[in-house]
Amino acid sequence: MAENARHDKTARQLRLLSDALDSGRLGPVRRLVNTLAPAEIGNLLESLPHDKRMVVWGLVDAEDDGEVLVHVGDEVRESLIADMDPDELVAAVEDLDIDDLADLVDDLPEAVSEQLLRSMDRENRERLEQALSYEEDTAGRLMNPDVVTVRADTTVEVVLRFLRLRGELPEHTDHLYVVNRRHQLIGWVALQDLVTCEPGTPLNQLIDDSLTSIHVAESAQEVARQFSDHDWVSAPVVDDGNVLLGRITIDDVVDIIREQAEHQVLGAAGLDEDEDLFSPVRRAVRGRVVWLCINLLTAFLAASVIGQFEATIERIVALAVLMPIVAGIGGNASVQVLTLMVRGIALGQVGGSNAGILMWKELRVALINGLLIGGLVGLVALVWFRDWDLSLVIAAALVINFCSAALAGVLVPLVMKRMRIDPAVAGTVVVTAVTDVMGFFSFLGLATLVLLR
Amino acid sequence: MAENARHDKTARQLRLLSDALDSGRLGPVRRLVNTLAPAEIGNLLESLPHDKRMVVWGLVDAEDDGEVLVHVGDEVRESLIADMDPDELVAAVEDLDIDDLADLVDDLPEAVSEQLLRSMDRENRERLEQALSYEEDTAGRLMNPDVVTVRADTTVEVVLRFLRLRGELPEHTDHLYVVNRRHQLIGWVALQDLVTCEPGTPLNQLIDDSLTSIHVAESAQEVARQFSDHDWVSAPVVDDGNVLLGRITIDDVVDIIREQAEHQVLGAAGLDEDEDLFSPVRRAVRGRVVWLCINLLTAFLAASVIGQFEATIERIVALAVLMPIVAGIGGNASVQVLTLMVRGIALGQVGGSNAGILMWKELRVALINGLLIGGLVGLVALVWFRDWDLSLVIAAALVINFCSAALAGVLVPLVMKRMRIDPAVAGTVVVTAVTDVMGFFSFLGLATLVLLR
Repeated sequence: MAENARHDKTARQLRLLSDALDSGRLGPVRRLVNTLAPAEIGNLLESLPHDKRMVVWGLVDAEDDGEVLVHVGDEVRESLIADMDPDELVAAVEDLDIDDLADLVDDLPEAVSEQLLRSMDRENRERLEQALSYEEDTAGRLMNPDVVTVRADTTVEVVLRFLRLRGELPEHTDHLYVVNRRHQLIGWVALQDLVTCEPGTPLNQLIDDSLTSIHVAESAQEVARQFSDHDWVSAPVVDDGNVLLGRITIDDVVDIIREQAEHQVLGAAGLDEDEDLFSPVRRAVRGRVVWLCINLLTAFLAASVIGQFEATIERIVALAVLMPIVAGIGGNASVQVLTLMVRGIALGQVGGSNAGILMWKELRVALINGLLIGGLVGLVALVWFRDWDLSLVIAAALVINFCSAALAGVLVPLVMKRMRIDPAVAGTVVVTAVTDVMGFFSFLGLATLVLLR
Repeated sequence: MAENARHDKTARQLRLLSDALDSGRLGPVRRLVNTLAPAEIGNLLESLPHDKRMVVWGLVDAEDDGEVLVHVGDEVRESLIADMDPDELVAAVEDLDIDDLADLVDDLPEAVSEQLLRSMDRENRERLEQALSYEEDTAGRLMNPDVVTVRADTTVEVVLRFLRLRGELPEHTDHLYVVNRRHQLIGWVALQDLVTCEPGTPLNQLIDDSLTSIHVAESAQEVARQFSDHDWVSAPVVDDGNVLLGRITIDDVVDIIREQAEHQVLGAAGLDEDEDLFSPVRRAVRGRVVWLCINLLTAFLAASVIGQFEATIERIVALAVLMPIVAGIGGNASVQVLTLMVRGIALGQVGGSNAGILMWKELRVALINGLLIGGLVGLVALVWFRDWDLSLVIAAALVINFCSAALAGVLVPLVMKRMRIDPAVAGTVVVTAVTDVMGFFSFLGLATLVLLR
């Protein structure tokens, strides 16, 4: 249901658009497209094959161009940018927020980014250069320097008067920041309090100084965790000296959380999260073949284990029939343990202090699952091949491989974390290599010992 | 880096806590725990084995109990609730927001939920019953009925006076809703505008009537998409007659997005997203064995295909050595295609109108990857077994299996979507079953035809 309701809406737009495009009448397409939010237009462009995408891109209101570019994946963005001339591009991006601009600027042709810097006023140029000086995926890159600050020694009435003079506030302003003369952060005042308190109330009484601010070098992931744990809408960013540099708003955090989830899902399949659904064949091949080659290496490793037992298989062909079962189910079991561990590590729930307890728990689960599944497979093998020894061998091999799966599932992500490799991306290929090798080795090895006596 | 920075903070807390627990001095543990936000306490409890978890749970400030229960997974929640007596439980949850309470109430023992309903005042009881009357995972369940409404025919000054009389606003109030006499939604006014406009401004001039409201029956997923596409902090919920029922705030939406991502990652490994890292062994076994049995069925299917070719393998044992390579790499290729398709479907980017184009693109990618990888494997097989025919057979089988992988990867999720099965959860087992069967069949079948001439 949920899945469909959502799909239906975008799919309906897509169908309408597709029909209108096919009919060649671009008026309705333009009207349809320009009722959408920039993020929705981005989503729509990503769902169109290259030629139609370019037609629709040409119909998007020029004032939305910049925001749309912010909301599409790198690969699609590149194709859209390639379609624009430098003047158009500069016009599209120059009014973006500094954080979005910093995000885009690396993807712009050099000539364009130079022209852009020249066309900006000095203050904005300095802000952009400042933003670019922070590492990617840190708070510094996410923040917007546009903040409203007030002094502590004043009243609600004065602040309201100041705000009326100032006019429009930055988007998602839910707090004003209280700073001292050296622009150091003292606390914040909620907009909600300003409108519910008597005008004469001293601001001092409204300042919440219990807030945790975000350090400019903090990782995007840590920022996302704090926002979601504290239910923030915005949060101030400070430097080592507690000087207020800017603020981060929830909309950017939502984007981070979405991207992290995508990165994990796509990374586990060896895909780049920016891969365009309609990327040219040559590019898609290049993107996937490396991952396939890595998996090929582990497949050859498993094959070489089988190769050691050619003589055994030659005498009992049933082994060749059954061996993929041992390896395959072991792989499934190891991926289950790995997935739980990866989540635990990402949430900070797995550390040195409880790894031993987890290992012990997983080994016991593996033993029981191994006995259950091993027994079941042994039974089927007995009915199929009517050989008690073969049946016992495969059951024992499954118990062994379930235990290998548990060990690999717990240890591989811990070791990878220490080596600063992302286990969400690289874990599966390693744990399934372990269970392939151990599956073939234990099954064929036991068979050689027991059946060829 | 990002991964670690975050981990380090929670891991440090965990280590401190663990040391303090081991030393048996509970004073420091209590102090440490109660500096944390409820969501952080929940995360911490989830990272502790059962006995330590219960000790720490007993030390949490009673006023945080309810919020902590909201923030832990079902399985952990159950164990925490089992530890509390009814009075404690009622006291913990009665002050929660209605949407959180509706979320929890199903997990409470019946005696407790009855006592809870009795202890609530009539208005809140009716609100809770109202909330429970909406289906789970819809806007109705997510919304909070606590909204601030104003009339259109007034001025900023009057509204500000009204707010001062009213006092504290509901959390994350960024807009006031403008309704008519029948409580139908007319538009909204931003708090930001109230503080920046002159007191005499008629409210009419500030009303934004372009907002899209959320229908009470809309799916949680669609709600999340709209929030993230439109960068909302809160949004009004209405019924069929456009009557304002409540509002949804971004913090709940962030939770939905996180849960959806978890559901996808864990579901793909056959795990329940509420599985406790430290769940009792028996429970963990029960949770995983069903999935393993499903995979076992497909493994037997693949084995039965190999069984058809026993005679062939008996004569050429090298086939047994190489066959897992054909099946395995085919599986990797199909998961890549499946993952891209699942993302495209979830984003509404893949519909009937472009499925054909995608199919054609993926087939071409598969053909090229098949030729590349097939050629490579053929070469290695030639060096290994010095048999030209065998080498050609495995290369051809790989090309065939890559094409099967592309077909399965594109078609399986589309068919599942139509059957209302979630391809993110059930897709992998089906596409790898296809590539296992096709891999073994094409390789052993071709070998029988070519090598046993």
